Parts: sequence; C-alpha cells; structure tokens
Amino acid sequence: MSVLVVGSVAIDSVQTPHGEAESVIGGAATYFALAASFFTPVRMVAAVGSDFPAAVLEDLRSRGVDVGGVETRRGTTLRWSGRYHEDMNVRDTLALDLGVFADFHPQLPASFRDSSYVFLANIDPRLQAAVLDQLPAPGLVGCDTMNHWIAESRPDLERLLKRVGILVINDEEARLLSGERNVVRAARQILGMGPRIVLIKRGEYGVIQFSSEGIFAVPAFPLEDVFDPTGAGDTFAGGFMGQLARSGDGSERGLRRAIVYGSVMASFVVEDFSYRRLQSLTPEAIEQRYRQFVSLTNIEGV
Amino acid sequence: MSVLVVGSVAIDSVQTPHGEAESVIGGAATYFALAASFFTPVRMVAAVGSDFPAAVLEDLRSRGVDVGGVETRRGTTLRWSGRYHEDMNVRDTLALDLGVFADFHPQLPASFRDSSYVFLANIDPRLQAAVLDQLPAPGLVGCDTMNHWIAESRPDLERLLKRVGILVINDEEARLLSGERNVVRAARQILGMGPRIVLIKRGEYGVIQFSSEGIFAVPAFPLEDVFDPTGAGDTFAGGFMGQLARSGDGSERGLRRAIVYGSVMASFVVEDFSYRRLQSLTPEAIEQRYRQFVSLTNIEGV
Repeated sequence: MSVLVVGSVAIDSVQTPHGEAESVIGGAATYFALAASFFTPVRMVAAVGSDFPAAVLEDLRSRGVDVGGVETRRGTTLRWSGRYHEDMNVRDTLALDLGVFADFHPQLPASFRDSSYVFLANIDPRLQAAVLDQLPAPGLVGCDTMNHWIAESRPDLERLLKRVGILVINDEEARLLSGERNVVRAARQILGMGPRIVLIKRGEYGVIQFSSEGIFAVPAFPLEDVFDPTGAGDTFAGGFMGQLARSGDGSERGLRRAIVYGSVMASFVVEDFSYRRLQSLTPEAIEQRYRQFVSLTNIEGV
Repeated sequence: MSVLVVGSVAIDSVQTPHGEAESVIGGAATYFALAASFFTPVRMVAAVGSDFPAAVLEDLRSRGVDVGGVETRRGTTLRWSGRYHEDMNVRDTLALDLGVFADFHPQLPASFRDSSYVFLANIDPRLQAAVLDQLPAPGLVGCDTMNHWIAESRPDLERLLKRVGILVINDEEARLLSGERNVVRAARQILGMGPRIVLIKRGEYGVIQFSSEGIFAVPAFPLEDVFDPTGAGDTFAGGFMGQLARSGDGSERGLRRAIVYGSVMASFVVEDFSYRRLQSLTPEAIEQRYRQFVSLTNIEGV
C-alpha cells in the first residue's frame, strides 16, 4: 500500500560542529518520502519554486516517489539556514525565507485521493485539515506539528487532532501541547485530544510510544558521529509510516517494528548532511541495523 | 554471595516540585545497601555521627545488611540539603556539612575481607583505592565517582580505574572524564582507562552499557510522578550489583538482567522521599516491574 505525504520541500544551509553544507535539499516531505520509499510506494504533495533542481524530483521519482503532487510555482523554494550547537539537541535558525511555501495550499491530484496511509508533515493545521477534506477514506493518518502552531493556532490544531490516528512530535512540543512537564502525563493528556497513538521523539534518547496498549520505548542508535541532525524526525516518520504501509500490520507488534524501522532510518540520515546517506542506502544495510537495534535493546534474548 | 559497599551515609533535607522532606536518611551507601539487600546479603562500611538514629542501623540489619563496618564517631553525620528544579534533572546544593565524613578512612572489619563483589560509592579515589588495598581477592569491583574528583584528583582516579571492573557514572561525568561530548566516544575512551564495563546513567532516559561485547541501552521506567530523584543512581547500583552477586552470572545476559533490576529499583526509589518506597517494597513488586520493563522494551516478542 502506498503512503501519502504532504509537507515542505526546502533548500537548506546547515552548520554543525562537524562542518557545513550550503544549499542542500531539505524539507520534511523530502526526508519523509525518501525514507518511506525504501518500504513502499510514496505519493508526495508539496510546492517548490522555479529555482528547484529538476534532478532532485527525477531522483525521487526513480526511487518510487510519485511527485505528481509537487507543484512547481514561479518564485523561490523555501530556504532555511541554521546552525547547531556543540550540543546538537540545540539549534538556531539563522534565516528563513518561505518563498512559494507561503502560499502553499495542498491540492491532491485525483490519483492520490484513494490514499489510505497519510502523513501530514508539519504545516499550518488548517492546511493539514484541508488535506484530509480531500481524502474520502483515509485509513491511518499520522501527523506532526510544531511549537508555533501549538502556541498560535491551538483551536485549529485541536480540531485536527480529533481526525488524527498517530501524532508524532518531540518532547518539547508534547510539553507545550499538554501543559505537562512529565512525559507520561503529557502523553495521557494528548491521547485524550484524539490520537490513538502518541509517538514522542526524544532526539539522541530515542522514541517513546503511548497508546491504550501500553508504553514502548526504544533508544536511538548509539552513533559515534552525528553529522547533521536535520530531518531526523521526518526520516523517522517516513520509515515508520512506510513500514506500516508495507506490512499492513497495525497491531502493537507491527507498530513496534515500524518504530524501530523509523529509528533505523533516522540513525542513517544523521550520518551525513542533507539526505545523502539515504541515497546510498541499501535494503540490506537497513535490515542489518534493524537486527542491531534488537541486540541493543534485548533484555532476555541475548 | 554478599556484596560489600563503601560510601557515605547522610541526613538530607530535600525540596522537590512535589514537596519537601526535612532531615531524612540519605547517602550513597545507604541507598545502595537497602536496594542490594533485596537480592543478597550486604556488608556496609561508612561513618556516622553520634546524632545518627540507631533505629536506622537496626532497620538495615533486619534487612540483611551487616552494618559491622559502620563506625559511629563523635560529631555530626554528613548533612546535605538540596533543591530540585521543575526540570528535576537539575538540582542546587543549598548546604553541605561533611561532619564526621570529613575524616572518613574506611576500615574493613576482618570478617569483610573475603568480599568478592565490591562497590566503591562516590568518595575520594584515594580512599576507594585504600579499600581495595584491604581486600586480598576482590572479584568484581564496581565504582562511582563525581565531577569533583574528575577535576581535582584525576591522577588518583586514573590509577584507581585500572583496578575497577565496572564504572557506573552519569553522562555529565562521562563527558568530563573522557573529554568527549558524544556518549559512544566517551565510553570508548573510558574503557581504555581500565574498566571492562562502563555504565552511563542518563536520568529519566535510562542507562547505557558499553563493553567489548557491545552496547545495551535500557530506558528508565516511565513514571507519572517522580517525587524525589535523590539516590536514584546509588539505588540503581545496589540493584545491579545485588543481582550480579545473587546470580553469579557475569555473562552479557547476566549483566543485562542486572541492569534491568537496577533500573527497577531506581524506578521505585524516586516514587517517594528518601528511601521510604524501598522500605515497603516486596520481591513480588520487583518481579512485576521487571516484567513491565521487558514489555516496555521488547521489539519482537510482544
């Protein structure tokens, strides 16, 4: 089953303690799509400017991403530049130019409207809702958001959350959304807002899933070099949703496996700037790191 | 097999976002001994002042802790008072009075000198070394330390580490000791200093073990209320070393199980001030939470 993603495509300039990359490809939808493409066909809805390299869309297409929903508009692509601190959990945005993304109003091609697996990457919750309005029968809807929308568009976000199955956010966002500092209390609050599952991303400490089935926690893969954390969360979501769509297994076990596949993909993407590491990745390497995750976390089965 | 612990006993006054406790029992050796006592007989070496309540030593004795190495000296017991922030990973020391602990020179009773499982809680590394000098045949030696000794007594600490099997420290201490910010690099550096195993405590994010066998990471148990984090690390160490001494299983599997038992004990102790929660704890509750840890972390076996 294919997975639909709606979100940003960007041109990023990134400085990390390990170096810098100028004008590389970024954006939540890009990271998501490339990661998910290792598991299942992907449908992508986004907007890029006339400055965007056609070769990138061609590369995505060659990897099984249907870019029929990526609109090329007169103007410039969203540009973000940022700098990570020594503690790479902290970053400063140096510049942001929304470009054509400022007027992004996602329009789904007719051929995308039968999508069942849907991921609404971080955009205005009213636009996320407008995407769902175009889908007659969404099955599993995953969703991301950010502090800005939680603070400035809470009513829209709360309305949206009633239509979302899985919310994927980071710990800071979970605190802001719930008003609770403790992660368990925060998750319980958020589960009361609509989502059946809340996935809280904790950066180098991994991911923790809350649902009525209980709690599942998985550490991040311990890496000696985290080169560039940009896109790790979206890559996680892409691996996670991609594996769910591939397996069709929404059981607790299926969800846990999907979370580990998401973590595997995130662990690769941070090994290089932009999504370069994903471009050279093989299914064998993914499976090998999945097994390493099992070994990393297994209490009884060593 | 019994486990020997050498370290501080204290009277603490603690403020947390949940309340405060005045003049309650604390100290690394106390937390360690009480936690380990659920697994194996414990031998305890410490110093207390004439103000120390005899009932506490009697309570420890009744739980299988041989307090024959706890010296009562003229003067006051070590007193610490501290305040935790809303983010309970951060605390301020409000007052510290070393009392009789200032002249603590651990003397092992003759009956303790055949100890094989040994834990050197956080004290001056020269004193930790002096304890080892009194043990003809230490088997497994675990050790804690703190920023102060890393910064001020590095040569002594480095000499000690060559005699230590398992170093149990927190992430900040690991960074300071190794000079590496990345946890994997930090652990590799520290393994090069002597210990066969490095256990890095990451507070609410759990524990990560490094050895030549590989890496094992376990999250902390997700709790809705962390009442008082004081002693969590020492309680972890007590459960960990206690289980190792009980099982005699130093294999990778045995180590992993012991880490989970340590995490179980730490998850209990933070549920109330001081070590109160341990006083009412049952072996059944420990086993139940152990199983919850398996369920919390198990990728494939749900």
